[in-house]
Order: sequence, then structure tokens, then C-alpha cells
Amino acid sequence: MFGIHAKGVYPIAPTPFAESGEIDWASTDRMVDWYREIGATGMTILGIMGEAPKLDGSEAVEFATRIIRRAQGLPVLVGVSAPGFAAMRSLARTVMDAGAGGVMIAPPPSLRTDDQIVGYYAQAVEAIGTDIPFCIQDYPLTLSVVMTPKVIQRIIMDNPSCVMLKHEDWPGLEKISTLRRFEAEGGLRHVSILTGNGGLFLDFEMERGVDGAMTGYAFPEMLVDVVRLSAEGQRDAAHDLFDAHLPLVRYEQQPAIGLAVRKYVLKRRGILASDAQRKPGSSITPAAKAEVEYLLSRLARRDPRAAKLV
Amino acid sequence: MFGIHAKGVYPIAPTPFAESGEIDWASTDRMVDWYREIGATGMTILGIMGEAPKLDGSEAVEFATRIIRRAQGLPVLVGVSAPGFAAMRSLARTVMDAGAGGVMIAPPPSLRTDDQIVGYYAQAVEAIGTDIPFCIQDYPLTLSVVMTPKVIQRIIMDNPSCVMLKHEDWPGLEKISTLRRFEAEGGLRHVSILTGNGGLFLDFEMERGVDGAMTGYAFPEMLVDVVRLSAEGQRDAAHDLFDAHLPLVRYEQQPAIGLAVRKYVLKRRGILASDAQRKPGSSITPAAKAEVEYLLSRLARRDPRAAKLV
Amino acid sequence: MFGIHAKGVYPIAPTPFAESGEIDWASTDRMVDWYREIGATGMTILGIMGEAPKLDGSEAVEFATRIIRRAQGLPVLVGVSAPGFAAMRSLARTVMDAGAGGVMIAPPPSLRTDDQIVGYYAQAVEAIGTDIPFCIQDYPLTLSVVMTPKVIQRIIMDNPSCVMLKHEDWPGLEKISTLRRFEAEGGLRHVSILTGNGGLFLDFEMERGVDGAMTGYAFPEMLVDVVRLSAEGQRDAAHDLFDAHLPLVRYEQQPAIGLAVRKYVLKRRGILASDAQRKPGSSITPAAKAEVEYLLSRLARRDPRAAKLV
Amino acid sequence: MFGIHAKGVYPIAPTPFAESGEIDWASTDRMVDWYREIGATGMTILGIMGEAPKLDGSEAVEFATRIIRRAQGLPVLVGVSAPGFAAMRSLARTVMDAGAGGVMIAPPPSLRTDDQIVGYYAQAVEAIGTDIPFCIQDYPLTLSVVMTPKVIQRIIMDNPSCVMLKHEDWPGLEKISTLRRFEAEGGLRHVSILTGNGGLFLDFEMERGVDGAMTGYAFPEMLVDVVRLSAEGQRDAAHDLFDAHLPLVRYEQQPAIGLAVRKYVLKRRGILASDAQRKPGSSITPAAKAEVEYLLSRLARRDPRAAKLV
Repeated sequence: MFGIHAKGVYPIAPTPFAESGEIDWASTDRMVDWYREIGATGMTILGIMGEAPKLDGSEAVEFATRIIRRAQGLPVLVGVSAPGFAAMRSLARTVMDAGAGGVMIAPPPSLRTDDQIVGYYAQAVEAIGTDIPFCIQDYPLTLSVVMTPKVIQRIIMDNPSCVMLKHEDWPGLEKISTLRRFEAEGGLRHVSILTGNGGLFLDFEMERGVDGAMTGYAFPEMLVDVVRLSAEGQRDAAHDLFDAHLPLVRYEQQPAIGLAVRKYVLKRRGILASDAQRKPGSSITPAAKAEVEYLLSRLARRDPRAAKLV
Repeated sequence: MFGIHAKGVYPIAPTPFAESGEIDWASTDRMVDWYREIGATGMTILGIMGEAPKLDGSEAVEFATRIIRRAQGLPVLVGVSAPGFAAMRSLARTVMDAGAGGVMIAPPPSLRTDDQIVGYYAQAVEAIGTDIPFCIQDYPLTLSVVMTPKVIQRIIMDNPSCVMLKHEDWPGLEKISTLRRFEAEGGLRHVSILTGNGGLFLDFEMERGVDGAMTGYAFPEMLVDVVRLSAEGQRDAAHDLFDAHLPLVRYEQQPAIGLAVRKYVLKRRGILASDAQRKPGSSITPAAKAEVEYLLSRLARRDPRAAKLV
Repeated sequence: MFGIHAKGVYPIAPTPFAESGEIDWASTDRMVDWYREIGATGMTILGIMGEAPKLDGSEAVEFATRIIRRAQGLPVLVGVSAPGFAAMRSLARTVMDAGAGGVMIAPPPSLRTDDQIVGYYAQAVEAIGTDIPFCIQDYPLTLSVVMTPKVIQRIIMDNPSCVMLKHEDWPGLEKISTLRRFEAEGGLRHVSILTGNGGLFLDFEMERGVDGAMTGYAFPEMLVDVVRLSAEGQRDAAHDLFDAHLPLVRYEQQPAIGLAVRKYVLKRRGILASDAQRKPGSSITPAAKAEVEYLLSRLARRDPRAAKLV
Repeated sequence: MFGIHAKGVYPIAPTPFAESGEIDWASTDRMVDWYREIGATGMTILGIMGEAPKLDGSEAVEFATRIIRRAQGLPVLVGVSAPGFAAMRSLARTVMDAGAGGVMIAPPPSLRTDDQIVGYYAQAVEAIGTDIPFCIQDYPLTLSVVMTPKVIQRIIMDNPSCVMLKHEDWPGLEKISTLRRFEAEGGLRHVSILTGNGGLFLDFEMERGVDGAMTGYAFPEMLVDVVRLSAEGQRDAAHDLFDAHLPLVRYEQQPAIGLAVRKYVLKRRGILASDAQRKPGSSITPAAKAEVEYLLSRLARRDPRAAKLV
């Protein structure tokens, strides 16, 4: 259940497109079923990596509604970041009526000072309504908004409907420790923290106190396993699996072309029928494809799931 | 007519709201009629100053449609900048079907290199269709995208549907001269150039070769007069009128609170029933109101139109 | 005396260069004498507009030392912003030993959060020593660091050696009022506030509670007069004089080319022998020169000092 | 020899400090000897990671001079990026006189357009003199200046003294391929390309056509081996070694704290006597130290050099 005790893995779902540019509904259904089968505890749609701005309003609602239904009760978190509060409210209320578990809100790049950031979340919550659970997205590399632990603390304490932090600051390990220390000292109520950044630091982030991952790596099974192994205290096993995937994780986490790599791998794995992106999209060159194939072949030696390609 | 020979003044229209946050249709109609009466040659809506992102999709279409009809043939330019091309295309085609004169496209803040900027406009034109006349918005201060004269040249030459440049680089006088020199030397076809920046440099911009103004100063009559006087070669008279308004022009041109000042003056002038903004909005303190009143009283000594307040 | 009660006008002094690129010492002396004669209460050197980064270390010290001596007791504030604290400390201690009144410190552009900014000033003060009076430079447009009133309050209250704020936020009128309200309510000790931004808002800034101006407008006599008239309560007279200069103030305040305009006017006024800048410098085209001449001729009708050109 | 045919590994040398903040000359000598012993083909000092701005002018010269002598003929590349050309020229000529192999120049963050970047390098070369071989630093993540392949091509073709590109764009694999394709097609003369980014993509960068690495990873032996293995065509062996180090490479490559990790590891390896940084410096928490120790222990199983700690 999406809430302050959420754990596990919420894959960031890409939006599957056909070569024609239309949403590929068959791939969408297959992807959702697959997330459920591999042990995802929820999923996130219409995020930055989900090409959300390339959908028009009605497409976004149709896509969200379809996934919510198909998820059969698995909580679906919907990105509702928008240039204005009218659009944010409209999308948030519509998807919640359709059964979404909650929404994710990223700060707009223009925010600079602590008070501006805190004030923005107060206004966003007023706009969408205090009854909708939401997740803060803390992603300075892409959004250029820097939130200190104290700012996150203020947002959480000011807004009871804040239930989760998507952590993708970089570097971020000390930030996680600081937030959990605030909590231990009584200055911060508990919220779920799931981490992003393509999973690049998941191994240590788990040990610093996060509850799992919310990212789009094309082998979410690895994320599920590492989260489980780490939670069980199997440190070496968690790192062994993580390290086996790290060369590909790193390759996928390249800005701008990461989504192209991810969709290509998901296509090779039989989840997506096409790796097409709507414009303006990134693409993957033959040289890059060959590199990904090489990475997959090396990974397959240590994780057999990488050998099952179509 | 909106096109490469457009001249005069296209006021940037604010979106009138009631205190309740609803669009104020009576003020909207009054404002459009007033623009026509004072000699505007067109008008621009849903721009950055028009609080466009605060309207949801259906409101934006309703607002545009109402203004287009009310303008009775005066060309209406509609801002269609959007995070994605699907929404841009959708809004552009809808307003053109409703009778808009053309659209205005601002580059997204993430663009950096010359090729990225040129490529973005190519994709935008492909998205909306090559049959829709469009205006480039060159506004580095707010958009953080810097276009050299050569980049503007490439966009104009690559895209026959580009008919206008909204110039608000700062400093920008040499840029205007450079573009007009490109044209004189045969390297650039003619397009209309209207200037923004609150009109702060309109006096000299006219002398550098622009065709008029596209900005939201609350006394668009001054813009109309200065453009006319300058076009007639009445240099001193143009500067005398401009200088009389400059203290208020400068005050209105403050970032972040400029719109609040503008709406306050438009309310005092009887055009808007309220100076309300939708959230997140700026507001004007009692101290600032007193300053604006003082500026209006001083202006009234030199321009009687500033004495007629309600 | 440079300190918490400093009032009046501290011109931002340009660095005079000969056409050869060498420092022009004769012009330097003439400029300093002139500042004293027109009633400046201090002066500021090696600021952003002073081409400080174009001097090497020994030149900067020689320039500062010469001006400090020539100023005959008028306090000289020296910009010591540097990429590292070693260079900042070295320059600060050297110029203080030479008799400087204090130093000015701008935040580096990388700072984002409130705590980062406050922490930076704490480290800077530790580096230069707590015995050197310093001025905060708050200039977001150029430095891209946004300081809230609360951040400025923290810096002032944390560091007893902070004696002045150079205010050039934009918009900034409410910030001045907020800081003075903090002071009236007992939450902030008094410091001097001098304003920059080329003087573009000096008329109202005085009324909001600043103590004067620190900026480089090429007619500092106007700044001196407006500060005096405003302090005497002669509101209309202050605005009349200010408004007469506003067209040129605005023209000079253009980023990137402002210094070229300023040096050109100072040359026309007989202060500088040359308007040369060291590379990378801006220059002024014949068209811009003609515009400045026109502005000067118009100004001369209302302020005879603009008629005395060489 | 530093030049267009430079190959191999140029470690980015940190500046060793004692706990007191003084330069630690014994560690400096030991570090230089060590670089020579492990097969570095050159070294780079006073770079961004070298805490260059924290040295004052005379320290920088003394540090450079000492290293150049100690390097016994191994080419030393010196970072000379500075806020102004006077300081850049002064440092560049001084270190060249002392025997440096060449200099490295990063673009200042204010540059935006293609022409601005090309123009900056032209002015820098004019300032330092056309007789000093230089390396372009292409590092958008930290410098926020984005250079297209065409811009790099223009800088190389315009300036015969440009002999090397330090490549640390991200993502950057296609950029390398594009530059090498320009060269193959005859549009670009050959220069050496060494890659940075902490080595995070060195495995594939070698395969795309770079000549080696210039980065500060605390096991430069790995960089040397991977460059050699890759050059010999031993692809799997190169990747095997690289992948073994990747967990630590990734950990070290975190912005802001990377240098603290690097210095800590170099201290554990017996190269540096202290991991102290001058202020403002980053530090490494006990939790982070424990993580690094764990990474070292895991690495030691696959690379015995990681087991030799002091």
C-alpha cells in the first residue's frame, strides 16, 4: 500500500509507444503484468522518464486509468508535476478518482531559497487537496532545485499528506542518514524513502535506511532482490548481485540517452514491442547497441535472467 | 494582419481573474475592446505574463476563442509553448481553427547549444504543422536560452512559417541592428520584429529597425504613440513621451512583481475589475501601491491619460 | 567612515586603462579627486564592474594602494571575492594594511541553499579574520545566488564584522522594507544599506530605508543629490532630478555593455583619458555612441552638468 | 611527451595538505614518484579536483615547479583556468618557463553560445601566447558549458597550439565517435583525447577512440592496465579488471565528496600522509569510511593491490 510504510520496489514505468507514435496498449498491459509478477510492490507512471510531457491531457488520463486497473490493487503513483496548479489539480483529482495510490510532485526549476521550496509544496497541497497522499521528488541534477534535509523536514512536518520521499540527490548517502537521524531524534515523523538515480547507489542506500527503490532500471528484478537481500541482512549477497549489474546500471544512467538504453533492453527482454520514443526523443546508435549487447552477454554469466532475450 | 509585415503594437494581454479565481469574462471583453479602440494592431494572449500555465487545457481554449471572436479581425497571437509537442500541437491547431492569427513559441530552458535551439524549432514546426505562422520568442533573461543572431537567422531561413521575432534580449539593440544588416546583405528574409522587455528600450529599438512593440505595459497607448511618432520621424516627440512614462515603465518591468503592478494599474484605469492573480501569484504591498500612485500622479502632469482613474 | 552608520554615495570605481592595456594612473588619480570633490562619502574598487579579475595579483594591490592614499581618508571599500579563501585572505589583509576601510564579499555562484550561503560567509570571515569590516554583496541577477531577508539576517547576526549590505536584488524594494522591519522589531542589528543596480531604483529605495548608493553611474553627482534631497524630505525634487537622468541610467544599466557606456561617458566628461577595457571587454558601436550622445544632449536640458563635455 | 600523440594515463594529482593546512611536500614527492613507477605517461596538476583555487599565487607556482622537477621529464600539464586573462597568462608563462609540458583551460561558466565558446578560446590563446600547447577541458556537468563536436572542431582547427581534449561530457560516447569521424573524414586534425569523469566510462571510451585517461581515481594502476589491455585488443580482460573496480570508481565519482574519498583511499594506500583538505573542503563521515573500507575489502578479492593498505 502506498503510504508512510511503503517498502520494496516501485518501477518507474516508461510509456510504451508504437513506431507510429501511438501508445502501445499491448506492451503497456504486458509491462504492468510483468511488474506484478516479479514482485514490485507498486509502480510509478508519468514521471520524468515516462515521457509524460509528450502525452496530451486526455492521453495521460487514459494511460493512467488503464494501468491502475491492470495493476489489480498494486498501488500506482502518478507524476502530476505541471507548470501550473490548475493542471496539477485536474490531473491529480482525476487519477485519484480512477484509483491511483497517490501522486508525485517535483519542484519547478525556478525555485531557489528554502522558503520558496517549502512554500511551493504548501501551495501544491492546497491546490490538489490535503486528502491526496503525495511523494516529494528530490532530484537536483535534473531539476536544479537543492533541498536540504531541513527543507525536506519542513515539507513533511507541514503537510500530513506527504507520505514518501523519492530520493535522488547526488551525492545522497549522508542525506538519508541525516533524515533518519532527525526521525530517531523525534524531529521528523516517519515517511517511506525510495531511491532513484537509476539505482546507482542502491546497495549502500539500503544500508543507510531507505525502504527500497523507485527507478527505471531495465532489470527491476535485481532491484527487488537487492532490496530483499539487504533487508534480510545478507550484505555480501546483496552487493554481489548489485555489482554484477553495475556496469549496465551505470550505462543506463547516462542522462539524455538513458531512456533509449532502457527501452532497448526492455524490448530485448520481450516486454516492449518497440523502443520508440515520441519526439523530442533520444536514440541509440549501432555502436551503443553493440555495447549494450556486450554488457548483457557479460551480465548473463552472473545473472541468468540476462540471457533470456527475444 | 499577422505576418512578416506586421507593424504597430500587440499588447500582451493579461488573463483577467475575479477574486474567486475564475476567469472574469466581462473584464476580458472590455480589455479586448479597449485594445482595439486605442489602435493596437493585434494582441498576444497566453504568454508568460498571461498566467497561461495557470489555466487548464479547456480554459485556455475557451479564453482564446472568446478573445479571437471579440477582436473582430484584429490578429490574435497565441502562446503555445508547452513541455511537450503533443500539447503544443493540440493547442496550436485548436486556436488556429478558432481563428487565431498565429502562435508564439519560446524555447525550453534546457537548450544550450546553437544546434539544439535550431533543432527544437524544427521539431516544433513539424509538430504543429508548417501551415501555422509562428513567432520566435527570444527572452534569455527569463528562459535562460541565448540565441545568437546567426541562430535566429537559421530558424527563420529553415522555417518558412516563421513570420515574426519577439525580441526581448537584454541588451538587445545591437542584435536588432545585426539582424537588419543580415537582411540588407541578402542573408536573411524579412520578418516582423516586435520588442518586449516591458518597452524599456522601445525608444531606441524603433530607431534600430523594429516594427513595433509586443509587451504588456499598462499604458499601451504610449507604445502606440511612440511607435507612430518614431515611424513618422518625430524623434524628439517620441522620446519626450517615452521619457515621461519611463519611471513607471521601469517600475512595471521588475521581475516577479511586474504583473501585479500591471494588473493594479489596469484596475485603476477601469479595464480590469480586479487585479487578482491565480496562485502562485505575486501581490503588491500597500507601500508599492503608494509608490505606483505617486508615479501615476507624476505621469498625469505630462500625459493626461494617467489622470483618468477610477 | 565605513561602518554600520555609513551614508551617502560610494561610487563603484572603474579601473582606468590606457589603450595599451596598462593601468592609467593619471586618470586614476583624477577620478579619485573628482569623487572627493563631488561629495562622495567613500568609494568601492575592484568590484565586478571594476574589471578586478583582469588585474593580476600585484596590479590589484598597487591599484588599491594608490587609490587609498589618494582618497585622503575617504573610506575605500575593496572587493576581495575570489575563487578560494587563500587569495581572498591575502588580498584582504594586504589592502587593510594599506589603509582600506573594509572589504566586499560576493557569494560564489555555486551556492544554492540558505545554509550554504550562511556557511560560506562564516568561512570567509574565518579566513580573512574577524577584525576586518565587510560588506555583503547581494546581487542575484549576476551571481545567481538568491538570499532571503532571513539569510541576510543570519549573516549579519552571526558575524559582528559585517557592517554593510550592498543591495542589488531585483526586485528589491520589499526586501529593504523587510530588513528594516526586522531591525525595528529587534531581530536585526543596524547595518548600513547602500544600493546598486546602476541606481535604477534609487528614488524609491531611499524612501524604503537605505542609506545611499554604491553604484557606478557616470553622473555620481546625481546620486549624491538624490540621496541628499531624499534624506531632506524633498521628495518631488529628488524624483525630478532622478527622472531627468533615468533614460541614461537605464541605458547604462544594460548587462555586458554597461561598463562600455559608463567608460565612454566618463571619457566624454574628462575623467578618463580612454574608455579602453582589458580583454575580454565589451565595446560600444558607433550607433550606441550616437544614442548616448543624444541622451546626453537631452539630459543637458535638465541638468547642466551633462553639457560640460570634452 | 605531451602533444597530439599523447597516450596513456595522466593522473589528476590532488594537492597534498598537512592537517595544519600547509602543503605536504613529502607526500607530494612520494605521489609523483609513485605515478612514475606505476606507468603514468604524464600528470595533471592544479585542476578542479586539485584544489587549485585554494592555493595563493606563489604557492601554486611553487607546487607546480616542485612537481615538474620531480617528474624527471614526464610531461606535467598545469591547469591555468582563471577568472581573468592576466592571471592566466602569468601562471601559464611561469610554469612553462619552469618546464611544464602544457596547460589546461576550462571555459568559464558564463559562456552559452557556440561563438562565445570559440571566441573565449581564441582570446585565451592570444593571452597566453600561441607557443604554449594547451588542452581543452570539456566538462559540462561542473562547468555548465556545453560544447558541441562542431565547437570543439572549430577550437582545434582555429588554434594550432591545441593538442589535446580532456573529455568529460556526460553522456559522451557518441561525442568521441563523432570527433574521430570528423578526423577520418578529413575535417579535423588529430589531437589526443584523454577522458575524465572519474573513469566511469573508460572501458567503452577506449573502444570509441580515446587515447587514455586523465582522471584522479585512487587506483591509477587500474586506469593504466585498462588502457593497455584495451589498446592490445584484450577486450574481456580490460572489462574484467574495470568491472572489479567499478563499485569504487562509482563511489569516488560522487560530486562534492569525491575528493574526500579519493584522498582517504590515497592515505590508506600510503601515498598521502593526510587526507586533509583546505577550506572549504568536503569530509568523509565514519559511515562513509566504513563503506569505502568494505569496497576496498571486496576489491581486494579481485585486485590484490587493494589489499596493501597502511
